Amino acid sequence: MKLLRVGPAGAERPALLDQEGTLRDLSALVDDIDGRVLGDASALDHIRAAAGAGVLPALDATGLRIGPPVGRIGKVVCIGLNYHDHAAETGAATPAEPVVFLKAADTVVGPDDTVLVPRGSVKTDWEVELAVVIGRTARYLETDEEALAHVAGYAVAHDVSEREFQIERGGTWDKGKNCETFNPLGPWLVTADEVPDPQALSLKLWVNGELKQDGSTADQIFKVAEVVRYVSHFMTLYPGDVINTGTPAGVAMGQPEPKPYLRPGDVVELEVEGLGRQRQELKGA
Amino acid sequence: MKLLRVGPAGAERPALLDQEGTLRDLSALVDDIDGRVLGDASALDHIRAAAGAGVLPALDATGLRIGPPVGRIGKVVCIGLNYHDHAAETGAATPAEPVVFLKAADTVVGPDDTVLVPRGSVKTDWEVELAVVIGRTARYLETDEEALAHVAGYAVAHDVSEREFQIERGGTWDKGKNCETFNPLGPWLVTADEVPDPQALSLKLWVNGELKQDGSTADQIFKVAEVVRYVSHFMTLYPGDVINTGTPAGVAMGQPEPKPYLRPGDVVELEVEGLGRQRQELKGA
Repeated sequence: MKLLRVGPAGAERPALLDQEGTLRDLSALVDDIDGRVLGDASALDHIRAAAGAGVLPALDATGLRIGPPVGRIGKVVCIGLNYHDHAAETGAATPAEPVVFLKAADTVVGPDDTVLVPRGSVKTDWEVELAVVIGRTARYLETDEEALAHVAGYAVAHDVSEREFQIERGGTWDKGKNCETFNPLGPWLVTADEVPDPQALSLKLWVNGELKQDGSTADQIFKVAEVVRYVSHFMTLYPGDVINTGTPAGVAMGQPEPKPYLRPGDVVELEVEGLGRQRQELKGA
Repeated sequence: MKLLRVGPAGAERPALLDQEGTLRDLSALVDDIDGRVLGDASALDHIRAAAGAGVLPALDATGLRIGPPVGRIGKVVCIGLNYHDHAAETGAATPAEPVVFLKAADTVVGPDDTVLVPRGSVKTDWEVELAVVIGRTARYLETDEEALAHVAGYAVAHDVSEREFQIERGGTWDKGKNCETFNPLGPWLVTADEVPDPQALSLKLWVNGELKQDGSTADQIFKVAEVVRYVSHFMTLYPGDVINTGTPAGVAMGQPEPKPYLRPGDVVELEVEGLGRQRQELKGA
């Protein structure tokens, strides 16, 4: 299923995009798409059955904002330098084990919402990523199979990054990863049963219509199952938590001078195969 | 006022500790102590008036668990290496600007809850800290006065840290800061009006009764006002967000070999002047 949330920011309603591409209202079945629903197999079965029976009311999509596909996100865990070509373009060595950092859930916005270039920023950069949404509380997982059984679904994430804040201002990366609006997510959460191989998805990103990133999750250093398993040994993952699994090569930081960092007025579009497409216009904060 | 939340984890009710040390129920006035209440001057005035009028029902504190004093915490921002003596004991240079990292809100537990030593941990360490709780949405603050006007209150935080995960496992510090139960908070949120000088508070921490940390917020490299102002330029702070402002010297990592890292069965007690005392027993995860 393609689950989503539509409506004004902070007041989204749950919805489903059916196989004919019609938007269907889920408000009568669940009050939100969030960890409580994603961790509840019977709620998901109920939605699936109602969708199959054709009893869900259609929603007029005209002018309707799409929000992030998960409400009440607890945390966003990110994996850095998780593609060989991206690690190389940043000048970093290939990590021996996953590089983990956090984004606050309040950085998450809808897939087509405005992205704000922070005041004082001269190095706002893009990163298309495959996001994993957790469906079951995960602690100390042992096997790949167990890890994948804790995944509710997948979505497109844009891990917007300010490189000067991230790298040149002292301390950890978090300073350049948590600016307001820095994590567009969506349009949909595609449930895991419809993504048979998360390691075979193409990822693409364009800036002002020019293709900048063109990769595949096949090139991830640490695969989705390994990432979920690994992270669960350092922190507990809860239903509705999100893991951004890293970006392939092609970011602004990896390009020759003058590096083409984002500026107000730029338009970024990105997609992950089967998970939909995002489009953001940049504005000054 | 001393505001707190009492009851079973996840089902705490709002309460107040009055000037006679009697616990008072706030359930009839507000449904929780959280960003919505802390950012609402009229709600706080209403609580203050009811407390002054002596109309709040007393609560029997016997056997009552104290939860974290803030519900629905969005994020926990932490300042690293923010005391001269602590930076020195870790071998780090004094930072030129604040070192910022994040803890997920799901690491926050009550002040006397069990702290779990992660599986595989050999370097679980302690850090007593002054926590700042945000009361108003903060973006790009300019002055110290403005920064302090965005602070709802203060609390004791225990920034539990696994040093091997933090420092020796690659990447940022977040891997060693986000283990389950790694951020005891409380017992109280003391409103900012009752903390006239946040830079004149002693901080102490004991392990199994032995004093390990004995510092003062006077020794902070970046003061509370500067920290709030600075962080607001990199991320938006929302009511109910928490900033852990760093720890003074005396952590296990800073001591001679064999360093006395925490083990199951150890008891940690900590306090910040005027903000109450915590006590945690360590157990294996």
